[in-house]
Order: sequence, then structure tokens, then C-alpha cells
Amino acid sequence: MSKKKIFNDPVYGFISVPYGILFQLIEHPIFQRLRRIKQLSLTHYVYPGALHTRFHHALGALHLMRQAIRTLQEKGVDISDEEAEAVQIAILLHDVGHGPFSHTLEHTLINVTHEELSTWFMEQLNEEFEGALSMAISIFQNQYHKHFLHQLVSGQLDMDRMDYLTRDSFFTGVYEGVIGYDRIIKMLSVKDDELVVEEKGIYSIEKFLIARRLMYWQVYLHKTVLSAEQMLVRTLQRAKTLARAGEAVEASKSLHYFLHFDLEGEDLLKERHTLLQHFASLDDFDVVAALKAWQHSEDEILSYLATSLINRRLFKLVFQKEAPTALQLAALQKELQEKFAYIEDADKYFLIKGKETNRTYSTAKEEIKILLKNEEVQPLSKISDYEIQNRIVAKNFLCYPKKVT
Amino acid sequence: MSKKKIFNDPVYGFISVPYGILFQLIEHPIFQRLRRIKQLSLTHYVYPGALHTRFHHALGALHLMRQAIRTLQEKGVDISDEEAEAVQIAILLHDVGHGPFSHTLEHTLINVTHEELSTWFMEQLNEEFEGALSMAISIFQNQYHKHFLHQLVSGQLDMDRMDYLTRDSFFTGVYEGVIGYDRIIKMLSVKDDELVVEEKGIYSIEKFLIARRLMYWQVYLHKTVLSAEQMLVRTLQRAKTLARAGEAVEASKSLHYFLHFDLEGEDLLKERHTLLQHFASLDDFDVVAALKAWQHSEDEILSYLATSLINRRLFKLVFQKEAPTALQLAALQKELQEKFAYIEDADKYFLIKGKETNRTYSTAKEEIKILLKNEEVQPLSKISDYEIQNRIVAKNFLCYPKKVT
Amino acid sequence: MSKKKIFNDPVYGFISVPYGILFQLIEHPIFQRLRRIKQLSLTHYVYPGALHTRFHHALGALHLMRQAIRTLQEKGVDISDEEAEAVQIAILLHDVGHGPFSHTLEHTLINVTHEELSTWFMEQLNEEFEGALSMAISIFQNQYHKHFLHQLVSGQLDMDRMDYLTRDSFFTGVYEGVIGYDRIIKMLSVKDDELVVEEKGIYSIEKFLIARRLMYWQVYLHKTVLSAEQMLVRTLQRAKTLARAGEAVEASKSLHYFLHFDLEGEDLLKERHTLLQHFASLDDFDVVAALKAWQHSEDEILSYLATSLINRRLFKLVFQKEAPTALQLAALQKELQEKFAYIEDADKYFLIKGKETNRTYSTAKEEIKILLKNEEVQPLSKISDYEIQNRIVAKNFLCYPKKVT
Amino acid sequence: MSKKKIFNDPVYGFISVPYGILFQLIEHPIFQRLRRIKQLSLTHYVYPGALHTRFHHALGALHLMRQAIRTLQEKGVDISDEEAEAVQIAILLHDVGHGPFSHTLEHTLINVTHEELSTWFMEQLNEEFEGALSMAISIFQNQYHKHFLHQLVSGQLDMDRMDYLTRDSFFTGVYEGVIGYDRIIKMLSVKDDELVVEEKGIYSIEKFLIARRLMYWQVYLHKTVLSAEQMLVRTLQRAKTLARAGEAVEASKSLHYFLHFDLEGEDLLKERHTLLQHFASLDDFDVVAALKAWQHSEDEILSYLATSLINRRLFKLVFQKEAPTALQLAALQKELQEKFAYIEDADKYFLIKGKETNRTYSTAKEEIKILLKNEEVQPLSKISDYEIQNRIVAKNFLCYPKKVT
Repeated sequence: MSKKKIFNDPVYGFISVPYGILFQLIEHPIFQRLRRIKQLSLTHYVYPGALHTRFHHALGALHLMRQAIRTLQEKGVDISDEEAEAVQIAILLHDVGHGPFSHTLEHTLINVTHEELSTWFMEQLNEEFEGALSMAISIFQNQYHKHFLHQLVSGQLDMDRMDYLTRDSFFTGVYEGVIGYDRIIKMLSVKDDELVVEEKGIYSIEKFLIARRLMYWQVYLHKTVLSAEQMLVRTLQRAKTLARAGEAVEASKSLHYFLHFDLEGEDLLKERHTLLQHFASLDDFDVVAALKAWQHSEDEILSYLATSLINRRLFKLVFQKEAPTALQLAALQKELQEKFAYIEDADKYFLIKGKETNRTYSTAKEEIKILLKNEEVQPLSKISDYEIQNRIVAKNFLCYPKKVT
Repeated sequence: MSKKKIFNDPVYGFISVPYGILFQLIEHPIFQRLRRIKQLSLTHYVYPGALHTRFHHALGALHLMRQAIRTLQEKGVDISDEEAEAVQIAILLHDVGHGPFSHTLEHTLINVTHEELSTWFMEQLNEEFEGALSMAISIFQNQYHKHFLHQLVSGQLDMDRMDYLTRDSFFTGVYEGVIGYDRIIKMLSVKDDELVVEEKGIYSIEKFLIARRLMYWQVYLHKTVLSAEQMLVRTLQRAKTLARAGEAVEASKSLHYFLHFDLEGEDLLKERHTLLQHFASLDDFDVVAALKAWQHSEDEILSYLATSLINRRLFKLVFQKEAPTALQLAALQKELQEKFAYIEDADKYFLIKGKETNRTYSTAKEEIKILLKNEEVQPLSKISDYEIQNRIVAKNFLCYPKKVT
Repeated sequence: MSKKKIFNDPVYGFISVPYGILFQLIEHPIFQRLRRIKQLSLTHYVYPGALHTRFHHALGALHLMRQAIRTLQEKGVDISDEEAEAVQIAILLHDVGHGPFSHTLEHTLINVTHEELSTWFMEQLNEEFEGALSMAISIFQNQYHKHFLHQLVSGQLDMDRMDYLTRDSFFTGVYEGVIGYDRIIKMLSVKDDELVVEEKGIYSIEKFLIARRLMYWQVYLHKTVLSAEQMLVRTLQRAKTLARAGEAVEASKSLHYFLHFDLEGEDLLKERHTLLQHFASLDDFDVVAALKAWQHSEDEILSYLATSLINRRLFKLVFQKEAPTALQLAALQKELQEKFAYIEDADKYFLIKGKETNRTYSTAKEEIKILLKNEEVQPLSKISDYEIQNRIVAKNFLCYPKKVT
Repeated sequence: MSKKKIFNDPVYGFISVPYGILFQLIEHPIFQRLRRIKQLSLTHYVYPGALHTRFHHALGALHLMRQAIRTLQEKGVDISDEEAEAVQIAILLHDVGHGPFSHTLEHTLINVTHEELSTWFMEQLNEEFEGALSMAISIFQNQYHKHFLHQLVSGQLDMDRMDYLTRDSFFTGVYEGVIGYDRIIKMLSVKDDELVVEEKGIYSIEKFLIARRLMYWQVYLHKTVLSAEQMLVRTLQRAKTLARAGEAVEASKSLHYFLHFDLEGEDLLKERHTLLQHFASLDDFDVVAALKAWQHSEDEILSYLATSLINRRLFKLVFQKEAPTALQLAALQKELQEKFAYIEDADKYFLIKGKETNRTYSTAKEEIKILLKNEEVQPLSKISDYEIQNRIVAKNFLCYPKKVT
């Protein structure tokens, strides 16, 4: 008689979590903090339903992991109870190192990847739980001898992607991004320590790849979303510049710490303990509260950006095939200097150029492997009669205040 | 104050139809007959929910047509009230010429296409309704001067496809086949008398193409579905052979007519009136009732096929890249002759070979046209960075009773 | 490593059935026959999506039973593997005794209940499977010592109801009839050999009762559905009358058998073997094929009724509180006699009166039992602050051809 | 050719809003602020998906209003274009006066109802838009001569309820709370200036009432939700007490203003302009940012409550029929005093008692009116054979830190 905690989830109906270490981790403040970090940053400025959090995503990925394990075990794949728990812990905590606004601010606040920070948090929790997370960490870092367990956490068909594509399409209302996660999971198997998909699941995989591509261009790289996120990055950069220059910039204690943070490499690692403590209390709310305060900042650049963001007065963003020419940039700079004559350096902060890339599927990275009916394993690109796209699709963009042509 | 008849539809919620000629056509016995013709023939032998009918599909396509017209009119496309009604009549009746088991028996019972038969029925109804269907017929036959109206009925993005893909994926439960019909319709426009899709709908179009492809291999050409349908064709062929040879074959009056029918060309056309009368009273029920009776036929081939179909003892079907070799066929024939030693010609009826093809999208036929932001129109294949697949995917198959290797 | 057969189901996504006796029973002609019996008779005349069959319903109820067993076992309820299989067999076959058009013709073709016929079929299968169904039959007949197993098959909260309410609301598109079957199942428990619901599931139970009530009036007893079903009953009654009077009535062999059948009591039981054989080959298709033929019958009553049904020209049906008065009936009879002056006895067949009753919940029958947090068990009517309705709601109706006031 | 702005909504698919004043109001900072106020306060602590905002709800209610107007106009109800726009403005802005955490803190921060504040905001916007909102305000305040327009905004079956029940059940994942909003809207009509429901919609109305009741007990008054909300109220009360006593309490500028606010009656009205300015910049983020800071407050009560809330260490909440007795309270107080010996007044802030009531339907208030087929209008309670519940269901509760029995 195993008691379980049940969470309601509009996406999967019910999510059951066994009481024990998994539930204790969920209850932990470090994990509860994920309730205050939106999965999709400012995407809700375009898709108002996209307010779901990293907390919910982590629970969802755990749910799918439990299904995947059951499927694999039923097919005779050897997964011990200890391994099953470890891989569940790994997926539950895989995003615990995300900070405010997830990917958007990932390298703006501090130059450490969220995977690295996740590892640090897991190690800290491992101490607290007296070693109970060791195998999970080993799986997460791909050091465990059963490689396929790592692939379930991080790979072409991991439970992270299965959940985020499903969840993001659900909450944005972009139903065309829906994938057949349940069918894909039912088709998973393991061959020679490698996660594979049974041949009859091949159309579901193609569908998965095309749905992912659609989500990229329609949601993740939507031009208005991109504009808002670029503005947010610029705002935080400005705040950091001011803070480090000794100007007063309103911020919560932890945000204050990161605005002034300037360590790199070895020095940063030495500071790790304190850094992690501050990071653990930092979330979307610190940043939004700061933005609201910065509307009244004396710094014109900071207040312009903050006010625009809070009231959703977003910059125009234009995609173009080629990188902008010097001529194009000069013209825009001139216009910005005229429009914002009263602000020094306006063009530096208000004219944003960049490049976004996406490819449906790459044969360069680890490929999706298909298990043929004759028990042979082949990479997807060899099997599918759908021409797997290898070409990188890149789009340059320019982003600046509206009414500046 | 326009009164409307409301139909409940699990797919779209509610379908509203204005009282008037559209409603009268729905009430007509010729249209009501579609209630007795399943949309997907024997697909329900694999997907038990796929019992929806041509009646329901026609209502659904009408529903989407009404949305498409409203969208186009709101964008300023000139569609008069009369044209709007005509194109609705055309889509409502586009499949009225389907016979029992839709496509499966299309050329087995009589060598006339269902489009031809639809036209004949429309002409008959036009007489009855004193010319009220003339414009609809003209649109249906692509003779009306506004070409885009025909494209809404029959074209790359017609309301027929929009509904059948949506409906078939709904009732089979293959949710990966779901398309974004509402988004696609919202993106439709007309430029130079041609139906076009606004540029920002391009990912929905790609998604639509891939979903269609998935439905082909996962549903329409599913090997077990194909097997059942091939068996059905063979059964009817046998019954016709027997009937024409003067053997007694149990059948309803109208089915009897078609089992003995052997006119072609001019002779067939002369018989058109009587033919249509019998066709109007023929549906799935005649065929299934016959199959049930034929289980007890004295003809061993007919009774074996009928019994197998009724009890869902289906032949094995194997896809293979190359066409079967003479050697392969000879071996199978030998085995069949041994197994069915007591039945003359068993191998002729029980060994079925064939070939199925599908292509995601062809640039040879009329292409999907994209309306760029600069008002230019380009074919999809020029615009999409997804490599539109031109290659025909063909699969040969062999189909025969189980336990004959 | 247990292999399973997977069915696609638009309602639950996937239904898994273990290979073994359950799968063998599904493959059996007696069960496959349920593919040809619609769950909801002529309801599709009002709700065009309602074409689902007893086959699909039985699979769905099996699916829910598997969930219920897993839930109960996880809560520590003692259910052996053998019992688990037996209760699954019982639910799979609970409706196998249904004939054409399910409840509509239940007592018209033959005066034996479908439960009785289900038992006879189970007994026949038990012989064929050498006793493997004995425990299932014992559970089905409520003779097994663990009473709660029978309640899962047939009781206030059995898996039959859970599935049919869910499935019927799905395919009709009456989403307001949706119940929280998954939540209710998660709340099930067993106390003192009785199926109970945990206290926190009480609102789901109330919701379940009200949804059921809504389905009754909006679907099962919808006046147009009722009209079509009443007409069908009258048609078969007329055909029987003619057949027994020695008139020629077109019918398949098995339908012919039942049209002439007139045994009762002991005599009927003696005939049981032959009767069952004919019943096993009788389904919706025999009746519809007959209706189509009867359109051309020389008997005016039969042909009028059959033609009306096939072309969906349905009688008007009016509900009224009180039973119709003699005066009201006399007036209608007179009108009918005038309108159908050329048909003898028209009023006898064309004027239908009857009464339908429904009650949300009755405290007279076995009540739903609630398991309080203090482990006490109480009947729902004692616990719910929603006033459980005990009153029978009865509606009288009159049904007759349109345009007769 | 009317251009429309389209919003994606997971609930309704697409929401179209015409450019013009409605779109301008949506773009206004006062409305954009609703993006930062969650519809359901702390409900996401129990239902993690419930993060939707007042912004999204207002858009949804607008969407339904547009459907309702179209339905009524098609039935011949006289609604001019100006009235249609006005009633849309009224529903769009009906909740604009909600503050942080919606109802939870409604009377804690300031003793003015959200309806009053909505009116004030509308009046302010009316000045800005030069009188364009006058009719909307008149409808909102029930001063417009067509009463049914007000009923669409605020009444038994208003578009506010239709949307919030639908939206809340969607995002919580409590699908049993789903109502048939589309069917109810299709059944609306107007008779003698009163919003009525056509008779055949009666089961949908009953279903609506029972779904609402279920949502109350399962979501809105869920004991864990209630506990969190009670704790939040206590936290803010403590902060106010400290602030007014002159203690330093960290807070944003606007929150600071309300923590120190103590005007009532006439004095409050005089301050209206400044008050509204501060209120317009106050939202969930101010409160959560404050809670995060208060974790480190020197005041033990404030820091205990804030820390508990942030880390979701919620008080136990127990419902009981009767109000707690003096004895019961004394015992709990004693325990609390012992457990929190180091905190003065702990029991005052940590022991919360209260009472929640809900009734499914009341015949005392304005009743739902049913339009019978004979054109008569009757109150629901006279028509429904479902016994409309009049009885108030009240539940007392006690709420206190866990592990204090």
C-alpha cells in the first residue's frame, strides 16, 4: 500500500508522486522557489495564458518519467528501484538552477549556465539528504554507467522536452504544437544501452520534430516575445552598469547582490556558497518589483525601458535574412539620437541587433535512433522518407522603439 | 432574425445551419442516405471509434465553409449572398455520390467516380429545386468565373480536407493528426482570384501537410485497414463473378442490380436514370447484410471471405519496397493451393498484391500559394525553409490468409 | 514482461488489454458481433456522432475496471490475480447479450432481458473455455463471496455507468454530461466488503448524479430520440403481427426466426440453444436491411413506418404532465383515421402513448456509501448537503405523425 | 472590412477584439496592470495551474459578451451598435478595480469594494476618453434604461460568471466544474427587458448551478487555499499594525501608502485622487516582494507568517459544523502560547477562526427566469423538477500552525 500525493494538472489530469524523498524535495524551499519563476519568461505578453512555472514543468516531466520507466520495465529493460528513483530525482531537479525569467536573463545576471547551477543545488541538497541524491547527480551529469538513463533526462527525446512542448502548447493555446507524448513514450525502448524508438513510432517522431519547429517560430522566437525579452536584457544590463558605477539602483537584497556581482572564473567559484544562497532567494518577483521601481529612476534610459516594459509598450522587431548593413544601422542610430536627443547613449541601449537560429533536427548531434522490426538500430535520418532537415535556419533581427522607421 | 437549426457535433461543438434550401437539402432522402455510409469504410476494425459517416463529414465541411466565407468577407473579398449560398450547397453535396464503403468499393460496384455521381445527383436535385442549385453545380465543376470559390470546395486547402483530417483524427483518436483548421481558415485570403494563405500562417500549413502525411500512413493506409478493404473488394468481385455467371447470390434489390451490372460507356449513360435510382438506395447496410448472408454461401471462396470479414479474421499484409518477384508469388501460390486444396482458384482470390503511394506535397499539381507581407504571392515551395517533399513514397504490399508464410 | 494489445480510443487515448483470455474473448465472434450493435440505438438521428457501439463501450468499461482494481489494490484491498481477471471478464461480457438497437427492441424481439442473455452467452463461452469463466459468472450473478466485486460490475458506481456516461457524452457532444470518472475511481475504496467513496470525493459524486440526470433528459429521453425509438418498436411489432399471421415479411434468416418466435416460459427455455445461435447472428444490420426492404411492403402500415424511419420523417412527440385523457385520445384517433383513411388500423399503430420516468437518485435502492475521515460509513443521503432527490420525475408522452394536431 | 486583434486563448481558441476604443482600453496601463493580478490569489498553492490573471479573465468575459450580443441580435432583440460597444466596455472593465490578490485582500488594504474602485477607474478613463465611456458606466451601475444589458454584466447569468467558472475549472484542471457556457449563451433571450433562458436550456442551467457549487467547495473554499489566504490576510494586518505604530516595514512606495492608510468615509473620498494613483500601481508583485523581504523582519510574527507563506508551510485548517466553543479555543490558545513562547501575542495572529458559506442558488435574490415555450416567463424555482436549494450551507473553520492539535 503505497500512499501518493496527487496534484491536479490541467495538462495530464492528475500527477501522482509517492511520499518519500521525491515528495520531500518538492516541499523543499529550493524547489518551491520554482513556483515564482515562469517557464516562458515574457511570452505571456503575446500568449496571455503562458504563465505556467518551472515548478509545474518539473512536476510534469516527473510524471512523464514515471510513465517512461513503467513502459521500459514492462518491455523487460532492467531498471532497479534505486535507479528508477534516481532518474526521477534527476528530472525533478533538472531545472532547479534556473533564475528569474529563465533563459532570458541566463547570462545577464551571472555568467553561469542553469545546468551548472542545477548541479550546485543538487550537491547542496545531497549533503542535506545525506547522500541520497548521489546516483541522481551521476545520472544528471552523464557519469552513470547506464547511459540511457541520462538520455531520459537530457537527450533528443528526454522527458524535459516531452513536457515543455506539451505544456507550452497547452498554456499558449497553440494547439498545433501538441505532440503525441503518450504514443512516443509507449514506443520507447532500450537497445545496447541506448534509448531507441520502435519503428512504428516513426510518424510520431516526425510529427514531434515539426511541432517543435512550429513552436520555435510561433512561440519561442515570436517577434513580439523576442522584443520584450531583448528589452528586459537591456534593462538589466543598464541597471548593472549603473550599480557598478556606484549609482543607487533600487533592488531587493539578492538582486542587489547580482547587480553588483562581477566575479569570473576561480574567484566566482570561491564565492559559490554565498552566491548560491542569494540565488536561492531570487526569482521573477525581484525583477518585476525592481522594474516597477525603476520606472521612477532618475536615469532616463533605465526609466524609459522599465516603463515601456511594465506598460507593454514594446519595441518593434523586424526579421531580415541578412545581417543589417552599416548603412542601415547608421540611419537608425541617427533617428534614435534625434528622437531621444535628451538621452545620452540612447541608441546604444535602444537599438538592438541579433540573430536567432533554429533547426528542426540535426544529424550532427546525437541522432534519434530507430529500432527496426528486425531488431536493427538505425539513425532516423537513414530511415525516414521525410527529408530530415539539416540546414540551420537563421534569422537576423533589428529591434528598436516604434515610430523610428 | 434568422432562425437556425443547430446540430451537436463532438468535433466543433455546435453546427448552425440556416433554415432554407440548405436545411431542405439536408432533410432530403438523398442526403439522409449519407447517414448510412461510413466515412472511413472498415477503418473501425483498427480504430473502433471511426464510425462517423459521410453525413457528419458533409455537415462539418459546411460548418467550416461558413467560417471561411465570413473570414474572407471581413477581409473585403467580394462574395455575394447568392455566391455564399451556392458554395455552401456545393460543399454540402460534394460527397453525395459516394456509395457503400466510400472509396473502398468505388470502382468495384460500378466504374463511375464518386465526383461524377455527385454531379448527377446534384443535377437531379436541381430539377427538383427548380434551378436553385445551378450556381452550386457551376462552382463544383469549376466553371464559375470566380475560381477561388471552387478552390474552397476542391483544392489544396479546401474545406473538405480541413474537415476530414480534423474529423478522422478525432474519431480514430489519432490526435497527432490534428490540424489547426481554425488558424488556417483565419489566415485565408484571396488575391487575383486565387485562394492564398497569409505569410504568418506558413507554419500552420507545414503542420497541416505533415499531419496529413501522418494520417495516411497511420490510418488511411494502415496495413490492417488495407487488408480488410482488399478483402472486401475481393469479396464483391467474387459475388459479381458468380452473379454474372448466373449463380444465385443473396442480395438486396439494389445490390442485386449492381452485382449484375455490366454496362460501360454510352450504354451506361443511357441507363443513368435507373442506375441513379438504385444507387440512391444503396449503402453500407446492403453490403454488410449481404456479407452476413454470404457466410453460408455454397461457393467456398465467397463464404470464406465473408466469414473472415464478419468475424474480423483478417489476412496478413506485408509492405515491401520492391514489387514481389515471380519467385515470391509462386511460393505463396503453392502454399495457398496446399492449404486450400479443397477450393478451386483459392490463390486467385486469396493472394492479393498491390501498391500504395502517398506524397506529402507535390509541386506538380496546383501549389499552395502564400501571400507575403509585401502583397506578393509565392508558391509554398519557394517560401518554406522546410524542404517540401516532392518525392512519391510508394509501398508495395502482399496480402494473404495468415499462417501462410 | 507482459505484452499488451493496444486499442486507440478517442475517449481515453489508449486502452491496453493483456494477451491471454481477455484478448481471446475480444477476438471471439460472439464479442466481435458487438461491433454491429450501436450503443445508443437511434440517438444518432439527433446527435449525429452517437454511432459508437457496444464493442467500444465494453472495451472502455474494461479499461476503467483495470484502473479501479489498481487503485483498490494500492489502498490495500485484497484482490487476487484470479479475482482481478474474473472481474475484468465479467465487465467485458456484461452487455454481450444485447440485441439489435440495444434497449429499444429489448422486449420486442424476444421476452428475455439482456442480462439473462449475457449470462447464457457467458455460460456457452465457459464451456468453450473449459471453465475459465466460472468465477466471472459467479461475480456477474452476485454469487461470489466478495460482494464489492459485483458492485464494480453492477451497482451505483459500477464501471459500466462510468464508461457509458463518459462515452455517450463524448460522442453526442453533450459535454455537460461529462463526469469525473478518473477522480471518482481514485476515491473508491472498500469497507466491510462494500464499495465506498472517500469523503473528499463527495462533490464529484453529486456532479455525477446531476450529469446523469442531464444525460437522461437531454439525450436518452430526448423527445426526437424517443419518437424514433417508439416508431421502431411499432414497426417491429407490425412485422411480427404480419409474420405470425402468415404474411410474407422480408427478413434475414435470424430475424425471420425472431419475427415468428412465440414461445414463453418453459418452452422458451427448451429452445434456448437454437435461440442463442440465431441471436448470435442478429444485429443492427439485419433490422436496418429489413427496414429498407419493408419500404416496399404491400402492407401500408409497415411500409409507412419503414419509409418514415429510413428517411428520418419522424413523428411528433409531446410530453405532458398528466396521462392523456380519453377525450384527447379520441380527438387524435379521429384525425388519424381521417388522414390515413386508406389504412385500416392506422390509429392503432400511429398513435403512441407512453410514460418515461427518471430519478436522479433513489434512497430506496442500494445507496452510494461514503467513507468518512473517521472511517465510519454513511449513505450519501445522510451526508450530502445537496438535497438528494428521491422524487420520481415522470413524463407522459403522446407520439403521432406530424400535421395531426 | 473590420480589422480585429486576435488573442490566443487556451480556453476559447481565439479571442477577436475590434480595433477602436476596446483595443485602446486594453492597451491602457490601467488595464495592463491586470496582467499582474492573479484571478485566484493563492489557489495555485493547491492547483498549480491556476496562475491566470484578471487580464485574461476580462478578455474572456468580453469574448463571451460578443457571442451573447450576436445571439440576442439574431433573435431580434434590439441592441444598437452603441449599446453593444458600451456593454462590451462595461464587461471589459468590470474588474479593473481589483487589487493585489483579488478578493483575498479586498478589505484588508483599504475598505472600499472592488466594484467601487472599478467605477472610479472607469470615471477616470471616461475623462481621458472624453465621455466615450458614459453609457458603459451607466450600464455598469444599472442606471441604463435597458435593464437586461446590466444583467449581462452583473446578474445570475452574467458573462463574468460564465467566464470565471469556465476559466477557473480549465486552469485548475477541475474539469468537473466545466459549464456549458456556449449552450447557455445560445439559449439566452430577452423578454420584457429581462434576461431569460429558453426552456430547453433548463438542464444546462441546473448543471451550471451544480458546477458552481462544486467549484466553491473544491476550489474557492478548498481548505488549503483558505488557509493560505487567511495567513496572507493576517500577514498584511500585522504589517499594517506595525506600520501605523511607526515601525519600519519594507514595502514598495504604493504598498507603503496603503500600509499607513487609515482614512474612512468623507476623508477617504477627499483623498480619492491620490489613492487611485497609488492603487493603479499596486499589484501582486508588490505584496510578494514584501513577503520575501518580511521573512527577515525583526518582528517575529511578521517574519514567521511571511516565511511560512513563501515556503508554503501552511497552517492546518479544520472545518466543523458548529462554531468553536470557548473551551476549544482556550485549549488551542494555550498550546500556541507554549509552542510560540518566545512570541508575544502569537495566539492572536496564529489562531484564526471564521466561517464560510455557500449556497447553490437563492430564491431570495433575483432569480433566473425561464422562457417557456408558450412565451410565459417563470422563475427557475417554479419550473425545475430539481429541488433548487435554498438552504445556506455554512462551515465554520479553525486555522493554526501544524502540530498544534
